[in-house]
Amino acid sequence: MHIFEVWAPRAGAIEVKAGKERFALAKKERGWWCGEVATAGHGTDYGFVIDGLEPALPDPRTQWQPNGVHGESRVVDHALFAWSDSGWQAPPLSSALIYELHIGTFTPEGTLKAAESHLDYLKDLGVTHVELMPIANFPGKRGWGYDGVDLYAPFNAYGEPGDLKRFVNECHGKGLAVLLDVVYNHLGPVGNYLEKFGPYFTGNHSTPWGGAVNFEEAGATEVRRFLIGNALMWLRDYHMDGLRLDAVHAFNDRSAIHFLEQLAGEVKRLEATLGKHFVLIAESDLNDPRLVKAEEAGGYGLDAQWSDDFHHALFSVISGERAGYYADFGSLAALAKSLRSVFVYDGNYSEYRGRNHGRQVVGLSGHRFIGFVQNHDQVGNRAQGERVSHEAGVGRAKIAAALVLASPFVPMLFQGEEFGASAPFLYFTDYEDPELGRLISEGRKKEFVAFGWSPDQIPDPQDEQTFNQSKLNWAELGDPPHASLLQWHKDLIGLRRSRSELSDGNLNAVRVRFDEEAQWLVLERGKLRIACNLGNAPVDVELGNGAQLLLASDDSAHLNGARIELGPDSVAVVSF
Amino acid sequence: MHIFEVWAPRAGAIEVKAGKERFALAKKERGWWCGEVATAGHGTDYGFVIDGLEPALPDPRTQWQPNGVHGESRVVDHALFAWSDSGWQAPPLSSALIYELHIGTFTPEGTLKAAESHLDYLKDLGVTHVELMPIANFPGKRGWGYDGVDLYAPFNAYGEPGDLKRFVNECHGKGLAVLLDVVYNHLGPVGNYLEKFGPYFTGNHSTPWGGAVNFEEAGATEVRRFLIGNALMWLRDYHMDGLRLDAVHAFNDRSAIHFLEQLAGEVKRLEATLGKHFVLIAESDLNDPRLVKAEEAGGYGLDAQWSDDFHHALFSVISGERAGYYADFGSLAALAKSLRSVFVYDGNYSEYRGRNHGRQVVGLSGHRFIGFVQNHDQVGNRAQGERVSHEAGVGRAKIAAALVLASPFVPMLFQGEEFGASAPFLYFTDYEDPELGRLISEGRKKEFVAFGWSPDQIPDPQDEQTFNQSKLNWAELGDPPHASLLQWHKDLIGLRRSRSELSDGNLNAVRVRFDEEAQWLVLERGKLRIACNLGNAPVDVELGNGAQLLLASDDSAHLNGARIELGPDSVAVVSF
Repeated sequence: MHIFEVWAPRAGAIEVKAGKERFALAKKERGWWCGEVATAGHGTDYGFVIDGLEPALPDPRTQWQPNGVHGESRVVDHALFAWSDSGWQAPPLSSALIYELHIGTFTPEGTLKAAESHLDYLKDLGVTHVELMPIANFPGKRGWGYDGVDLYAPFNAYGEPGDLKRFVNECHGKGLAVLLDVVYNHLGPVGNYLEKFGPYFTGNHSTPWGGAVNFEEAGATEVRRFLIGNALMWLRDYHMDGLRLDAVHAFNDRSAIHFLEQLAGEVKRLEATLGKHFVLIAESDLNDPRLVKAEEAGGYGLDAQWSDDFHHALFSVISGERAGYYADFGSLAALAKSLRSVFVYDGNYSEYRGRNHGRQVVGLSGHRFIGFVQNHDQVGNRAQGERVSHEAGVGRAKIAAALVLASPFVPMLFQGEEFGASAPFLYFTDYEDPELGRLISEGRKKEFVAFGWSPDQIPDPQDEQTFNQSKLNWAELGDPPHASLLQWHKDLIGLRRSRSELSDGNLNAVRVRFDEEAQWLVLERGKLRIACNLGNAPVDVELGNGAQLLLASDDSAHLNGARIELGPDSVAVVSF
Repeated sequence: MHIFEVWAPRAGAIEVKAGKERFALAKKERGWWCGEVATAGHGTDYGFVIDGLEPALPDPRTQWQPNGVHGESRVVDHALFAWSDSGWQAPPLSSALIYELHIGTFTPEGTLKAAESHLDYLKDLGVTHVELMPIANFPGKRGWGYDGVDLYAPFNAYGEPGDLKRFVNECHGKGLAVLLDVVYNHLGPVGNYLEKFGPYFTGNHSTPWGGAVNFEEAGATEVRRFLIGNALMWLRDYHMDGLRLDAVHAFNDRSAIHFLEQLAGEVKRLEATLGKHFVLIAESDLNDPRLVKAEEAGGYGLDAQWSDDFHHALFSVISGERAGYYADFGSLAALAKSLRSVFVYDGNYSEYRGRNHGRQVVGLSGHRFIGFVQNHDQVGNRAQGERVSHEAGVGRAKIAAALVLASPFVPMLFQGEEFGASAPFLYFTDYEDPELGRLISEGRKKEFVAFGWSPDQIPDPQDEQTFNQSKLNWAELGDPPHASLLQWHKDLIGLRRSRSELSDGNLNAVRVRFDEEAQWLVLERGKLRIACNLGNAPVDVELGNGAQLLLASDDSAHLNGARIELGPDSVAVVSF
């Protein structure tokens, strides 16, 4: 027996079709339809027939689409999985090291099962939280996952729903928490049948990626429940420890209770019910501390948000890049401001944006912000998917790592960053419709031709080779300089664990000194100094007497009385 | 000598044309152009020529358009007006009685000058704040004013800039504060040249009335300065005591510093500079207390907002109306909730909206909300511009007045309400373009035909008679029942002044008892009881021993021991 339920306020009649039989659902309040089918249960394939019109459509809340986004939905009984993680609690974000991971390219096989074999490696590296790029079912056999359409169903190419549970269970068994990236600001263009069921979208706003989700018009209560129910499902039925919320700046919600606040409130209720810690982390381009402020202070009560300004400030200094949004950054002053104040744009004028942007962070811990120098977007949205180590070399990648891992933020690495993987992370898709595929391929080329690239330098997203090239090569781990970079990350992570100054989120305690001309910068964290030479000449920087060298990225670092000498592209950590 | 300045980031060249001469302006930073013209000064007519293309366009910040929205701009030197209101301070909102007034229909002449002759009447009535419907220059010779396009220039048909100053000066001389209704959520469709100068609007959002204002995209800093500069001009150069902000729910602004918060901050700075009190009052359909919460509590820091839920709850009970948004109201329970909690929809599900709506008001004074049973919209947007007294009769209009004037909110009257004016307040326009005029006329009819009206019952907005019919007839003031209703208002206003319970904004102290079936309701305010019979049979309500009858709307009220007898459609105020 299975009870089928669906919100379909636009329908005059709803039937569930299982096999060749159709069963009418009864109309309930506010657009809901409901019915029990005695012969259905775990494993039953079905679809919904609206107003008698076949073909049947996938369930908006389908738990599994074994045959892809256009196929039948399959009933999944979550109670059947045998969890062995009882008593598991994720460590707090304040002590976290997040590792962003794309299941399709993390291993040659590109599956959840294959990823399990690297969990010991992650644990050994010092990772506490694995963050999975989107898992919600999307079209084709490969992709980043930000075009998901079946939000409740794991992507087939990665495995079955049980494989995802097993992955999480294994992680917990090894002491690793799991975060999941969820996309609630838009849905993908292919296999999106939601609009046939109800007003999931609105024409009164637009987003860069498709129809704006209806957060504030008629029907919004159920649309919000659809999304929040999805969040709660991952936490409850898949034992996820938290969610990363994609591009919340693209939400259009003027409701008195913002969607994010409602979501945070519901997740807190689930925490209380299950007695488990969960975290919500937003990707936001708003530079708005309201997201992570407590509800009592007028905030939305999220746990943390990505700190893009820190990324831009750091990456532009490390790489010398000044194109696009990097035009707003590039100085050591901006990098210093991001380390002390989080947002470089905190109300001041941004030339790139052509307007004032952001708001000051006041009274918040640095642990409300995730710090990184790479992520899937910042690597993958480059023309050739170049990593920092490709762009700037190992020496400067080591400086970046030192500043991320000594920052007052919660540090995050992107898969392969820790060993300077030779694989790029390219933009890849698998749209079956040739016309859409062509548009994607041409759009990608056009985007970069505008920045001076020639079209044949831009890998074709639709080409399977583009996907395959993006897979990590674990065999290179032992080769220098990969081994050297990996050891550097392990040393820094070890230092962050052992020195309480580095896990201090108090932004008021962060000091930064720098010389824009000589291109050196010193980050002061308690008794520690992270001294960086970002220039192409040796520098000699005063630190004070009594320093002791803890870590150095190369042999050029020498303490000389109250001063430290550093060769170009090098960094050292000293302690007083 | 006069310095011309204009923001025109889209222009390659800007000239100011005065007479037959053209003077080039110099390009400054961020899209600004500036130039001094030795021969120009107070009274000079001019326009801006963009990229050499005539005709010259009105200045976006034009101070006066003597020949209408398409004509030349005229330089106004505000320093020339001789103010005599030095030392003037408006009384606080907590003690206010606001009187909403439309200059065009308040008097037969429809001018600011003519309106001055009624100031003594308003003062005598007990009004503290005159609230002018929009004054910003709009097309044609008559209209409500919500289609303004020259935000910095007073509407010609009402008088010259000096007439507006004289009106405010006269008000201050008589002890009356002046509030002005300003429209920042959209601009009118005719005479709107702003887009030729810069990105004032965005296509990424829509409003019900035209292009959405650009609050958050490139150029938004200057668009916001344009609007805030306008607000500051009315307060500084015209000595307005505050602003009523039209339909702030139609703002699309996800900026970390919301436009309203920025505006409130800038107005507070002007307060400090000038040493004068100003107030900002929002019209909002969001039911969001954030608007009137202090910035320190995560709010936007406005002084007050209109309380539409109280209006809807009260009007639906008084009139029996249940169409449109009144479907969500109509019970005494809803009216009681609005009196105690402000928002009837404070997070719960609204059938009319098809979604959950609003948020609870916690820890705010009732004086953060404006209470009324009529305003220009609620009268004028009815098919025949019917007032409460027309719809429900004098008896029930008296009940409504008692509940508004004894409410914990800041009470507001709409012109003529106090004497049950026989004139309706109709929707009227004067679009010169015949096609637009036809669309407006037909649209108006269509809107009400959908509610069961026949087209010939709907006055034509474009017909001058529709405007003329809406003018108050001051000659009827002495006739019963006008005189009776006027006296009733005076009595209630006098009571609100003399009894501190009524000017108490503490919502926690408000008690309401009611009987949905018998249709009586008692509002308890300290030692006062406002007992209302909203049914069509006499009622007999227990009040407790020792009550004393202060006011009764008709002869039916009798105290009988611990009880009060009230005839149908009557209200009494008693004291313990």
